[in-house]
Amino acid sequence: MTDHDPRYFDDYVPGMTHDCGSVSVSRAEIISFATQFDPQPFHVDPEAAARGPFGGLIASGWHTAALVMRQLVDHYLSAEASLGSPGMDEIRWLGPVRPGNTLSVRATVAEARRSQSRPDRGIIKTVIEAVNQDGRTVMRATGTNFLRVRPDA
Amino acid sequence: MTDHDPRYFDDYVPGMTHDCGSVSVSRAEIISFATQFDPQPFHVDPEAAARGPFGGLIASGWHTAALVMRQLVDHYLSAEASLGSPGMDEIRWLGPVRPGNTLSVRATVAEARRSQSRPDRGIIKTVIEAVNQDGRTVMRATGTNFLRVRPDA
Repeated sequence: MTDHDPRYFDDYVPGMTHDCGSVSVSRAEIISFATQFDPQPFHVDPEAAARGPFGGLIASGWHTAALVMRQLVDHYLSAEASLGSPGMDEIRWLGPVRPGNTLSVRATVAEARRSQSRPDRGIIKTVIEAVNQDGRTVMRATGTNFLRVRPDA
Repeated sequence: MTDHDPRYFDDYVPGMTHDCGSVSVSRAEIISFATQFDPQPFHVDPEAAARGPFGGLIASGWHTAALVMRQLVDHYLSAEASLGSPGMDEIRWLGPVRPGNTLSVRATVAEARRSQSRPDRGIIKTVIEAVNQDGRTVMRATGTNFLRVRPDA
């Protein structure tokens, strides 16, 4: 399965891991996102951050989550099938994301079940991991998505 | 307790609910955030969204989460005490957030315990809710935060 095949519920098979590419984040991007949404000193103020709990500026966890989401939209969820998400469980920010870091994202299908009430769709659960350039997992989460069943299925 | 008192772990008492103010989101903001981080048709393309599963454009759940985070930083977490978050559980996007909607955010302390290994800090769990202008809860989540204990405590 390649990124650009039309992909439906039927194509998300439990146990399969998908490479979702990688993304880098700059100091300017970290400060810009956090200034808008999470202006804590260790996200927006390099000098305060150097004296703070992480010894330097780190990305907001919500920024990391948003960067990961972009990789999922580009490489995992398909525009044909995606019907949104009811939620996300067990988000864990396991390590700091610092300026210049590169995160590789992978998505593993954990569960897939056809909806009983709405047979045109299914529900998948996905374990999402972001690993930095040193091989350290910096974020993990389990997402739930509604996906259309293949039209001719 | 007002928003601007220096606030430490000791001040987060289970059962207390904090009003975290409200925030509105525009169509342009919804499209801008989603173009960068979550470019699914129902977040970025008004015409496709009108034909899609939500009958119109809706905010990315990550955008809603980021808007809620800003209210928490401004009204709930204190710059003096906050030592970051290890994670977030049971994020539920319970209803669509549409252009022009206004979300009121409240935070209820669910648990507070002093760290045994690091007595200078405590761990709190917070139930976070965002309610729209019609009184409908559109997002709920449980966050975990590390907070400094009051220095003279």
